Amino acid sequence: MIVVLKDNPNPKQLDNLIQWLESLNISIHISLGKDTTILGLIGDTLAVDIDLIAALDIVEDVKRITEPYKNANRKFHPDDTIVDVSGIKIGGGNFQIIAGPCSVESMEQICFIAESVKKAGAGMLRGGAFKPRTSPYAFQGMRDKGIELLMEAKKISGLPVVSEIMDLSQLSLFEEVDMIQVGARNMQNFELLKELGKVKKPILLKRGLSSTLQELLMSAEYIMAGGNGQIVLCERGIRTFETITRNTLDLSAVPLLKSMTHLPVIVDPSHATGLSRLVKPMAMAATVAGADGLLIEVHNDPAHALCDGQQSLTPEAFADLAKCINQLLPFAY
Amino acid sequence: MIVVLKDNPNPKQLDNLIQWLESLNISIHISLGKDTTILGLIGDTLAVDIDLIAALDIVEDVKRITEPYKNANRKFHPDDTIVDVSGIKIGGGNFQIIAGPCSVESMEQICFIAESVKKAGAGMLRGGAFKPRTSPYAFQGMRDKGIELLMEAKKISGLPVVSEIMDLSQLSLFEEVDMIQVGARNMQNFELLKELGKVKKPILLKRGLSSTLQELLMSAEYIMAGGNGQIVLCERGIRTFETITRNTLDLSAVPLLKSMTHLPVIVDPSHATGLSRLVKPMAMAATVAGADGLLIEVHNDPAHALCDGQQSLTPEAFADLAKCINQLLPFAY
Amino acid sequence: MIVVLKDNPNPKQLDNLIQWLESLNISIHISLGKDTTILGLIGDTLAVDIDLIAALDIVEDVKRITEPYKNANRKFHPDDTIVDVSGIKIGGGNFQIIAGPCSVESMEQICFIAESVKKAGAGMLRGGAFKPRTSPYAFQGMRDKGIELLMEAKKISGLPVVSEIMDLSQLSLFEEVDMIQVGARNMQNFELLKELGKVKKPILLKRGLSSTLQELLMSAEYIMAGGNGQIVLCERGIRTFETITRNTLDLSAVPLLKSMTHLPVIVDPSHATGLSRLVKPMAMAATVAGADGLLIEVHNDPAHALCDGQQSLTPEAFADLAKCINQLLPFAY
Amino acid sequence: MIVVLKDNPNPKQLDNLIQWLESLNISIHISLGKDTTILGLIGDTLAVDIDLIAALDIVEDVKRITEPYKNANRKFHPDDTIVDVSGIKIGGGNFQIIAGPCSVESMEQICFIAESVKKAGAGMLRGGAFKPRTSPYAFQGMRDKGIELLMEAKKISGLPVVSEIMDLSQLSLFEEVDMIQVGARNMQNFELLKELGKVKKPILLKRGLSSTLQELLMSAEYIMAGGNGQIVLCERGIRTFETITRNTLDLSAVPLLKSMTHLPVIVDPSHATGLSRLVKPMAMAATVAGADGLLIEVHNDPAHALCDGQQSLTPEAFADLAKCINQLLPFAY
Repeated sequence: MIVVLKDNPNPKQLDNLIQWLESLNISIHISLGKDTTILGLIGDTLAVDIDLIAALDIVEDVKRITEPYKNANRKFHPDDTIVDVSGIKIGGGNFQIIAGPCSVESMEQICFIAESVKKAGAGMLRGGAFKPRTSPYAFQGMRDKGIELLMEAKKISGLPVVSEIMDLSQLSLFEEVDMIQVGARNMQNFELLKELGKVKKPILLKRGLSSTLQELLMSAEYIMAGGNGQIVLCERGIRTFETITRNTLDLSAVPLLKSMTHLPVIVDPSHATGLSRLVKPMAMAATVAGADGLLIEVHNDPAHALCDGQQSLTPEAFADLAKCINQLLPFAY
Repeated sequence: MIVVLKDNPNPKQLDNLIQWLESLNISIHISLGKDTTILGLIGDTLAVDIDLIAALDIVEDVKRITEPYKNANRKFHPDDTIVDVSGIKIGGGNFQIIAGPCSVESMEQICFIAESVKKAGAGMLRGGAFKPRTSPYAFQGMRDKGIELLMEAKKISGLPVVSEIMDLSQLSLFEEVDMIQVGARNMQNFELLKELGKVKKPILLKRGLSSTLQELLMSAEYIMAGGNGQIVLCERGIRTFETITRNTLDLSAVPLLKSMTHLPVIVDPSHATGLSRLVKPMAMAATVAGADGLLIEVHNDPAHALCDGQQSLTPEAFADLAKCINQLLPFAY
Repeated sequence: MIVVLKDNPNPKQLDNLIQWLESLNISIHISLGKDTTILGLIGDTLAVDIDLIAALDIVEDVKRITEPYKNANRKFHPDDTIVDVSGIKIGGGNFQIIAGPCSVESMEQICFIAESVKKAGAGMLRGGAFKPRTSPYAFQGMRDKGIELLMEAKKISGLPVVSEIMDLSQLSLFEEVDMIQVGARNMQNFELLKELGKVKKPILLKRGLSSTLQELLMSAEYIMAGGNGQIVLCERGIRTFETITRNTLDLSAVPLLKSMTHLPVIVDPSHATGLSRLVKPMAMAATVAGADGLLIEVHNDPAHALCDGQQSLTPEAFADLAKCINQLLPFAY
Repeated sequence: MIVVLKDNPNPKQLDNLIQWLESLNISIHISLGKDTTILGLIGDTLAVDIDLIAALDIVEDVKRITEPYKNANRKFHPDDTIVDVSGIKIGGGNFQIIAGPCSVESMEQICFIAESVKKAGAGMLRGGAFKPRTSPYAFQGMRDKGIELLMEAKKISGLPVVSEIMDLSQLSLFEEVDMIQVGARNMQNFELLKELGKVKKPILLKRGLSSTLQELLMSAEYIMAGGNGQIVLCERGIRTFETITRNTLDLSAVPLLKSMTHLPVIVDPSHATGLSRLVKPMAMAATVAGADGLLIEVHNDPAHALCDGQQSLTPEAFADLAKCINQLLPFAY
């Protein structure tokens, strides 16, 4: 951490600052210029509150040099983390496609889709039971009943299942869910993240709608600080000024995240674009860019899906996509 | 709602669509052009899922004409809502300044600030007990203990108190808190909003970091749909490309929201700018733009505040601001 | 175009509106609802000023149904446009890599790079003579002299050259430049676009930093309306909240643009990311997503490049990239 | 400027860097930590290319401490600049309202508006002759003829006039225009800025649609570096995710810019919001926030204006606004 002081800092205040930093076991290198004095803080600066220093009268500017995340940082953990979802591995060379409907709608629907996507090569089943919807008047998911139906589909297909939690109070319902998804709107629901740090289950953490990559890693850090290191990160599009697509898929996030962290990174082209005709080219692009997996919405009858029909593939289109992805995998970055 | 069909729509599919809409008690006006057929849907279209229609093969485009919020809509409730916070009124001509520290830190601190801001003219006390912080290593608030101290400050000063809830599991601790704040990062925590709809207490709902005004009103609608109409909306800055300020205060939100909804609208210039020297000019601007109140961070020792010191005013600076606001109020839009 | 009227529109004003529209050869379908009257405008609505209608007292809302661009619209020109740059074809199945330095710096430099990239498979040479720089104190390009050196490199390598124009007054210097580039900051320099519509030379039009795809196509439409249909569109990253990369590459723009327009679409991963280590994975992703070509910065000594060294590849890294792209091409979307 | 080196930098490369910096008359303070070496560069770092240093192998990070603008920097020019537009002063306590139509449409129109706004208290007349329009099919302004009509209105009303230049080739037509406006889309048209630096006329420089404040000041620096210091800056709204307003007015830009620079800062609430009903409250807010003036669109018949009717005030509404602004001025920050 570097602290740039204002011209002619009050010596007593400077002394106070230095003493306080030393009490935190930070050692300080002072570089005196004609107009500018710079303090270089060396040591474990993670616990130093950058806002507190910035608020001091004698301080012109403060900058972190080292990243504010530690557990998630590849510098300290050079090897890829491999996340194990009930036997299915993601990361470290293991590529997985997670497929299924936006919402669980009926036993028939979820079981049919589960078997279809398994046959086409999906490694896991996704399905929403609790649905975050902008409007209170829109379908909110089948909730408890949806989780039950997912369990049936899991039994029948043998695929591990992923489903989204929306509130801590739902946690007990997720006991048999194999991986818990934290949605984009909950990426900074810090109380939820803390509790998920205590859970013995992999977490699928989606990037927030207008979050930076560092913010995403800080949210992963919340979970890891609690003791749970089994996290899969998911790029699912960010909000931009473009209005044709629901969001804008940020594919440079894939190689960037993989250099910043050892956690696996997957891509959700369905939510990112909101348009089924863009899912295949974006899934292909994500694959060659080095993603560790894909999250794909599949529905047997997209035009009558209870939510997000526009972005769902039919089982046939999914099978075609999966085949194409397999051809590309040997060429991936 | 307007549905624009593609050229030469399949007659059977069109028939299905019309029958389904009629089953929802929607009546339909068909306008046949040479190339384009337009359906005008008349009736209560709130429950019609726009995504579902957009996903149909025969549909080119769908647009809502009427707003998707009803309880929050000024069209249906032309009179200003006056929110009553334990006797202190906001809205409908009642202007209030809510002041206090970002975080409750000690009995001495919160009581001193409470008395200072009361003397300067604040109508309510704010103080954070649960703090959403980007880093798990940063101070997370005094939590339960912080609420207790707030209650002491309330007793001593007589000011009603506002504090932020971060998770439903904390709700029982807020029994004596006079108004519950939902922070920007929780604006779309829909499960939380639903529960707050059942609470008999005013809610201070902050706009999300990259939310549109309609999304803010949809979140208010979630609370109102549950039966709680005592909501104060708060503009607190949105994320933009500017890096000098923490966020960018969107003051046009004030007159716009007040035309869209009957709910009171207040402004938080402290969080919006993140810089104490911008708080006064932005508070002044908010006042003349027609805001129903202000949320101002005040700290007795900003340079040693445990969080957000940079944006806090001293009690003296706050007293000066409050005086200046009172002079401007008669000229407000 | 659809015009939604306010409740109980003034009949005289409505009559005026209808007469005015009919005078523009627009025919009108009136759909009368209980609360809402909708006008459907049929005909060539390109010349109808949407702002003018929106400003009318009786109008609640106006929406365009048809796109406001015509020459660039794939609906009216279903076949891919193939742009011919002095014999080198782009589009319609012809994939080209355009490579070279950000700035022309010396005869030695530009000729060495030209021969290197040609050998590695580039179809065209890029090189900046006029450089848009945020600071007036930064290197502004070699200007006239830079164009001269480019011509030498063209002679020696046989590669057609692309270079950026910054102002109409420079046009005469571009006589032997094979394709003229319009940079992101000039995408809405409408006077420049109009003049380039009269030029008999292909134009490389880059997307603006915060432009939508429709705005990009409207800028292409300016050039096409002047008579020049030889336009290559270039996605080069948009401004987002992410700070690690210079911009955020929007790869969904590739399949989207290709569905909206018949013009070729290429991708510039060098400017989009600003980091050389991201150029290869993003170039690979762009290729499989269906781009018609790539624009890649190559410099023999990136660490001493006069501008944008951070994002340049060495000739060796470029040769590796080109080889990899060739392997992927058969699998592209 | 601070350069943070990577662990164990190559000593020869470090030596080269130091020698090169010293050749630029930069002195260097080296701070050696256990893991991190920091170089503090002291001297005139304006000419040091930050990208070039960042591209070096041994460099982890580079940060500027001092602002990259000098002529526009209040630190070096503490007194307010007063811009003199043919006798009408802006800045340094002089507040001016500049009013007029978006486009000059006819002699009758521009003269009527000029006299109306003068009577209501406007200090200058604005009127567009060259109009930047997104669509080539929209009205492009009366061009040369428009400038002529403006000159007539100037003669009749005695008001100095402001009009927008779109290209250098139009410069000769602006000889009698009193202040030349550079529009938001041309804020980074660097060739235009350079030429305007040689002109002996005040320049009204508008902030770009997605520009930071530092970028705006760098564009002012381009003009000032050429010798023209008579610049008025204008905040006119930035692009955000909100769709109800055309742009989002960033009022914190006013006090921020006034602390960063000595140049006057005015606000354009008409373009910023795009809605006439928001112009008055935002003009009021801008005034108390400390703006040096306002730019207001006025049209005698907004519903039939050839462009931007939605955001224009009638002469009556403008007179009411001007009166209200005068009442607020004594209370401005």
